[in-house]
Amino acid sequence: MDHDEIDRILDKTIPESMARRGRTTIDSLLAPVRDVLNRRIFPDRGLTDSQLELMVQILSSMDTDKDPEAARVGEREARVASPYVASLAADFNHGIGRSGQLSAPQPKAAGASLMQQVANNTALDAIRKLGLSNTKAGIVTPVSTGMSIALVLSALRREVGIKKVLYPRIDHTSPKRGIALAGLDEVQIPTVIEGDAVRVNLGEFEKSISNTEACAVLATTTFFPPRESDPVKSIARLCSEYDVPLIINNAYGVQSQEIMMQIRSAIDAGRVDAVIQSSDKNFLTPVGGSIVVSPKSELIAWVSDTYAGRASAAPVIQTLAALLSIGYERYKELQKQQLENLAQLQESLLIIAEKLGQRLLEVRNPVAFAITMDGLDVEEIGARLYNARVTGPRAVKKGDYGSSTENYPHSYIVMNAAIGARKEDIETATAKLYKEASR
Amino acid sequence: MDHDEIDRILDKTIPESMARRGRTTIDSLLAPVRDVLNRRIFPDRGLTDSQLELMVQILSSMDTDKDPEAARVGEREARVASPYVASLAADFNHGIGRSGQLSAPQPKAAGASLMQQVANNTALDAIRKLGLSNTKAGIVTPVSTGMSIALVLSALRREVGIKKVLYPRIDHTSPKRGIALAGLDEVQIPTVIEGDAVRVNLGEFEKSISNTEACAVLATTTFFPPRESDPVKSIARLCSEYDVPLIINNAYGVQSQEIMMQIRSAIDAGRVDAVIQSSDKNFLTPVGGSIVVSPKSELIAWVSDTYAGRASAAPVIQTLAALLSIGYERYKELQKQQLENLAQLQESLLIIAEKLGQRLLEVRNPVAFAITMDGLDVEEIGARLYNARVTGPRAVKKGDYGSSTENYPHSYIVMNAAIGARKEDIETATAKLYKEASR
Amino acid sequence: MDHDEIDRILDKTIPESMARRGRTTIDSLLAPVRDVLNRRIFPDRGLTDSQLELMVQILSSMDTDKDPEAARVGEREARVASPYVASLAADFNHGIGRSGQLSAPQPKAAGASLMQQVANNTALDAIRKLGLSNTKAGIVTPVSTGMSIALVLSALRREVGIKKVLYPRIDHTSPKRGIALAGLDEVQIPTVIEGDAVRVNLGEFEKSISNTEACAVLATTTFFPPRESDPVKSIARLCSEYDVPLIINNAYGVQSQEIMMQIRSAIDAGRVDAVIQSSDKNFLTPVGGSIVVSPKSELIAWVSDTYAGRASAAPVIQTLAALLSIGYERYKELQKQQLENLAQLQESLLIIAEKLGQRLLEVRNPVAFAITMDGLDVEEIGARLYNARVTGPRAVKKGDYGSSTENYPHSYIVMNAAIGARKEDIETATAKLYKEASR
Amino acid sequence: MDHDEIDRILDKTIPESMARRGRTTIDSLLAPVRDVLNRRIFPDRGLTDSQLELMVQILSSMDTDKDPEAARVGEREARVASPYVASLAADFNHGIGRSGQLSAPQPKAAGASLMQQVANNTALDAIRKLGLSNTKAGIVTPVSTGMSIALVLSALRREVGIKKVLYPRIDHTSPKRGIALAGLDEVQIPTVIEGDAVRVNLGEFEKSISNTEACAVLATTTFFPPRESDPVKSIARLCSEYDVPLIINNAYGVQSQEIMMQIRSAIDAGRVDAVIQSSDKNFLTPVGGSIVVSPKSELIAWVSDTYAGRASAAPVIQTLAALLSIGYERYKELQKQQLENLAQLQESLLIIAEKLGQRLLEVRNPVAFAITMDGLDVEEIGARLYNARVTGPRAVKKGDYGSSTENYPHSYIVMNAAIGARKEDIETATAKLYKEASR
Repeated sequence: MDHDEIDRILDKTIPESMARRGRTTIDSLLAPVRDVLNRRIFPDRGLTDSQLELMVQILSSMDTDKDPEAARVGEREARVASPYVASLAADFNHGIGRSGQLSAPQPKAAGASLMQQVANNTALDAIRKLGLSNTKAGIVTPVSTGMSIALVLSALRREVGIKKVLYPRIDHTSPKRGIALAGLDEVQIPTVIEGDAVRVNLGEFEKSISNTEACAVLATTTFFPPRESDPVKSIARLCSEYDVPLIINNAYGVQSQEIMMQIRSAIDAGRVDAVIQSSDKNFLTPVGGSIVVSPKSELIAWVSDTYAGRASAAPVIQTLAALLSIGYERYKELQKQQLENLAQLQESLLIIAEKLGQRLLEVRNPVAFAITMDGLDVEEIGARLYNARVTGPRAVKKGDYGSSTENYPHSYIVMNAAIGARKEDIETATAKLYKEASR
Repeated sequence: MDHDEIDRILDKTIPESMARRGRTTIDSLLAPVRDVLNRRIFPDRGLTDSQLELMVQILSSMDTDKDPEAARVGEREARVASPYVASLAADFNHGIGRSGQLSAPQPKAAGASLMQQVANNTALDAIRKLGLSNTKAGIVTPVSTGMSIALVLSALRREVGIKKVLYPRIDHTSPKRGIALAGLDEVQIPTVIEGDAVRVNLGEFEKSISNTEACAVLATTTFFPPRESDPVKSIARLCSEYDVPLIINNAYGVQSQEIMMQIRSAIDAGRVDAVIQSSDKNFLTPVGGSIVVSPKSELIAWVSDTYAGRASAAPVIQTLAALLSIGYERYKELQKQQLENLAQLQESLLIIAEKLGQRLLEVRNPVAFAITMDGLDVEEIGARLYNARVTGPRAVKKGDYGSSTENYPHSYIVMNAAIGARKEDIETATAKLYKEASR
Repeated sequence: MDHDEIDRILDKTIPESMARRGRTTIDSLLAPVRDVLNRRIFPDRGLTDSQLELMVQILSSMDTDKDPEAARVGEREARVASPYVASLAADFNHGIGRSGQLSAPQPKAAGASLMQQVANNTALDAIRKLGLSNTKAGIVTPVSTGMSIALVLSALRREVGIKKVLYPRIDHTSPKRGIALAGLDEVQIPTVIEGDAVRVNLGEFEKSISNTEACAVLATTTFFPPRESDPVKSIARLCSEYDVPLIINNAYGVQSQEIMMQIRSAIDAGRVDAVIQSSDKNFLTPVGGSIVVSPKSELIAWVSDTYAGRASAAPVIQTLAALLSIGYERYKELQKQQLENLAQLQESLLIIAEKLGQRLLEVRNPVAFAITMDGLDVEEIGARLYNARVTGPRAVKKGDYGSSTENYPHSYIVMNAAIGARKEDIETATAKLYKEASR
Repeated sequence: MDHDEIDRILDKTIPESMARRGRTTIDSLLAPVRDVLNRRIFPDRGLTDSQLELMVQILSSMDTDKDPEAARVGEREARVASPYVASLAADFNHGIGRSGQLSAPQPKAAGASLMQQVANNTALDAIRKLGLSNTKAGIVTPVSTGMSIALVLSALRREVGIKKVLYPRIDHTSPKRGIALAGLDEVQIPTVIEGDAVRVNLGEFEKSISNTEACAVLATTTFFPPRESDPVKSIARLCSEYDVPLIINNAYGVQSQEIMMQIRSAIDAGRVDAVIQSSDKNFLTPVGGSIVVSPKSELIAWVSDTYAGRASAAPVIQTLAALLSIGYERYKELQKQQLENLAQLQESLLIIAEKLGQRLLEVRNPVAFAITMDGLDVEEIGARLYNARVTGPRAVKKGDYGSSTENYPHSYIVMNAAIGARKEDIETATAKLYKEASR
């Protein structure tokens, strides 16, 4: 309803000054919503839940299934079993995209189409403001990081004909599945142990890139210690030199200013085709979506053309809502807290290591530390922590899969101080670790 | 809270007979919820929205992010930007699955894991009760039908080494994208025009299957007229004979008893590896998920191992909620209405055809009819229908892509009477079609 | 947001025809909401839940507590403990009214003030359309029917100095409490038994009205058989003759066209000051509000000036939402069903009476019938029905309070077929009655 | 569902340790809810919104209208127009109480009855813990403070025969309306100006109490400066001496430890029959309910017997939810912040007074200060503040009604720093006051 109409209605009923006040209030409430739809930027100040809810309702009210006059004779018309079922999709019952084009406007779903554009633009703006100012296009995908890797790789297969993926070893199933899903062959690049750290063997990498036909590279910025981030700047330079596409799996790297700076340098210094990040690990979204950004607009268009069908709108609206709820200022605060928590985690683990006669592994990681558990039953300690309601620590037994190398010489436990964690999480988890490890 | 406790609390306050009555009421309300969790079947009577909401809350309350005492030190801990953002995921903030295993129990998410098992079992039971009693395993995937085709094909590539997909021609982008995403080569099987109908050229198909190595077949049961369903029984027999995996894209075929009977016969008579159906087109779910069933349990396990990462729970809970909301009895009623609407659509189009000097195409299709628009500007009529708020008709100009053949000799418009459509939809849409076509 | 703005935003993103379609959809969705706010009438067609929700959000968004820029330095500023607590009030945290003026615009709450005006107008329009076309003003009160009687009586005490209330005997506590709360003396008018019916003794009534100073009359249209409705037309004539205010307790009479006709005649033929009706018993609202209408505008103003303080908005918005949800057409259907259910109730009870050797009492009542239970333990049967999950029957033992007379010669059970009941309610309840009474 | 059942269900699906973890989580989540229902105390730690929502759902699910098997044949059966309408009442569609007994268990509404008992007990416990440990019974009423005054006075009229109410002058309409609604005569006790303060003339009060038959006293603890609190201890002693009931209108006094101490002393030292407080002004509830407590259990029973009918459950559940949301610890923090804000308000107003050549009135008030506006157009300044989005200041022109005395020698503006206000409210409001007053 427009201003004139609200005025007219109010004026019939209540004193003019009250009417004006009522309009001022609703205008102020809606101003940030309007701003989001018009400017599509990562806002400085977050929106309230009421504002987000209003925005979602306005948008989903534009889809044709809301039209009381519509006659619907397609095979798929966003008919929904009950109001509750529709509410589970925030009423975006048509989903997003057209068959095989994730970002294409869907004629039946003007609102969802607009929503997705806003999500793409807002996510890109957030990534740019948080460090990757040299990216040009972005998309919020309704699938996991690993699946987004598959979408990007499949797009590259189709468009530039890659056949293999050079992948500096990371002991993580999802990206491997992503490579396999795209029908590509993984060429694992071995790692080396340097001090406590496990790093990609850059010599081997260069050898591989120089003699593999039709390949792309998948590099990783964030994984558990003792694995360290791949040197994306060096890798990007080599990719440029050999004209090989580079995809950076930046799963939870957005929270780290240092990592974001490295990626920006990599883009400036060499070739980077896509940077993929989890929406939940970086932006406090429920699990399910990812953000893919690129310095090259066409790559994002290719990715959009790779999802096979119309998709659930849920991961996209969740990501958009989370981005808008947080906003730039609160994100900077969350980053600050994350660094404080990380320092606290380090300190606590150092004390525990000393008490237990263990060692903190000397590994650079933006959110995590690992403490050795040599001579202890690390699997049993992990199980006990789980039962003691500590979630998320990673217990790896010497020699087991997980260290991204063969023969890592320690058992260890990793703990994270990732964005959004509370000080109490760190305090309680480390206290319980000590309790369980010293039993 | 258990019965004894509710009793104790009520007895302190209110007369004993009232307390008993209160307990009876809450028990009756929860009985179908209990039943769903225990028996995991497609219920005869649907659940109410209140019951569904309670079920969802009970389930999502078991995930660790709800534990007030938990210390969370993983890199991903279902931390969510705000309560509204969590509500967009029905509070299943951990998503579903473990990295690269869609159906694997997730230790941080007991509730979501249980939910997904219940969804898989309930969906399978629904498909079995609605015709495919000879399927043995099923999974609700959090992706579109086309993407599910990709997951199934990719699993077959990994497990049995397929390289090519024989695909009787359907002019639809999504499945082609699914084949491409899996990194497989599509071998298009040509169609023939027989009378008005466009059908797969079975002779060509047999020729292809007999001389293509390492292939699978993707057959289709539901598409727009003039394309007719593929003869899945004959194809399954050939697949059995040549030992080739057969995937049936049954996009919106669940609603049709006839098609379900054909598929059941195909399973009995030959080889069928997977049957894939849209959850929204068959079960009034918001767009975003699919149901894959199979007579072979291991195939479903392979598919579950193909999604690369943890996934959004939203499409799964939406599908489960829609299945439970409808229930078997209402589904049978919806099917009955669908057949009545289809008859009405046929009748109205026959009258219009006569008035306009056009013809109803004689094509078997479980939900749709096509009327010729020869000599008219069919694209313009389609655009006018859109503006007249008729959604879903498909206008194809003679010679244009869309008829699943070259040189189809008519322009035509397709209208659907799919499950969930109302009588008014058919009446209004056909009335407007006549108005716009006779202008 | 106004049209131009929505257009501008949509046009930036999606094709022009889609943008137009999206705007058409949201406009169509909002049209009935707009209509409600502009015209404030009982709509012919009810609004959907989504439309109601949007309307409530728009309205509550105008209250100052939603203004992000407001500086709030009163002692009461609609600060609320949590979002969930606010949601329990549909975010009308300021309540309604100013101290001691229920309908006065509240400067801090433009939205709630508007909402209440709309509620008052819509309720009046509904009552007028459903029969009392000769009423002129109305108010939705946030209190029960009995409390509304107190408000009306207290207003009459203040404005015209009444001291006593002539009250044809009804064995119901609430109205008596209403009279007492207003500090007035109840003068009970006795009843007489005529056949099976219990009716006011009109001769005694005339005697009382002719020799009581400063009194008002409280007459009743709906109560349980064997009590019949008061003859409001005759009473209104006497009230006119003696210049005595008449209040009609029309608790659940709106559903009955016959009773509404009688009240309209009473207004035309004599003096009626106020007609009070329950919102829940007539309009399927949760318990808690009432509707007071009057042929005299000043009376409603007086009532509004009698509530001592600002009130909860909840009963008012619930009443408004129920009125809008139903609309005139569905109300007429509900009335039709009510009459059918009533006929069915009569028939079933006649059969049961015959089988049990009992009798259906011959009493005119718009929604209920009573069956004798002579020689049976009627209290025990009532208790058994309660345990058998039949709610609402009224079991009265011969000689006990409840028949609105001394010495009523039967034990009996009353059952209702009131508006909103389902056929199954009647069937099940009567079947269980027979079962329990014949044990 | 009980533990064993949850276990059984989980064990069928997921590993035993996960099942245990899931149960632990849901148990921890529900533990505070259980505690509320069992112990009915003002909890130390507040409940989360999710916990509150679950509690409300459990409770409202016990009312008979939720029973799918119920046959409902009463004239009022909590039938509701639509799910959204029911949600506006948190599904407590039966309301609370029986006709004319607010706290009586309602056989159709086991859940609402339990809810109300819990609300009464929790509210009493809160009031006791926050200072009035010598009160014995309490009730949450579904009406405003002024209406609750009417209920208490009407109960006293019925039970002990009071006819008049001695009321130390307060220029506030609601309580006067409450006295009038109860049909009682107000005897206004004059005030005196002492320094800046306006206080009850205690000599006149004693004269009145000593020679008024059948009266009660209504004293006030919280009003706007320059009016100060009544000396409740002295008044209670006089009430004891003359055996006159004393009702204390403690509208927003719960937040003030000092006022609560005075009332406690008054109860110990003399006669106090009821203490009435607003739920919204003290406990951040939406406007609409009150809390009445008493050192005498029978008085609360009388009050419960005075409301004429069944009432809306909304104000009661809102009050209960707010109490539980806050909890004792957060309440103490809010009190601390209130005192800080009050100090800040004083400081800012002192500075402004000096700049403007005005004076801060020297009046004791727990939440407010008044600044003189002599020689200025105070009404115009008030209007400008309203337009400048400052809500709540009270602008009184010299000689106008509002000072609780004739001839108060100043114009002035009152600002509050009440519980729940933010520091920014005070800062912005005082800054705008200076701007507008110095224009």
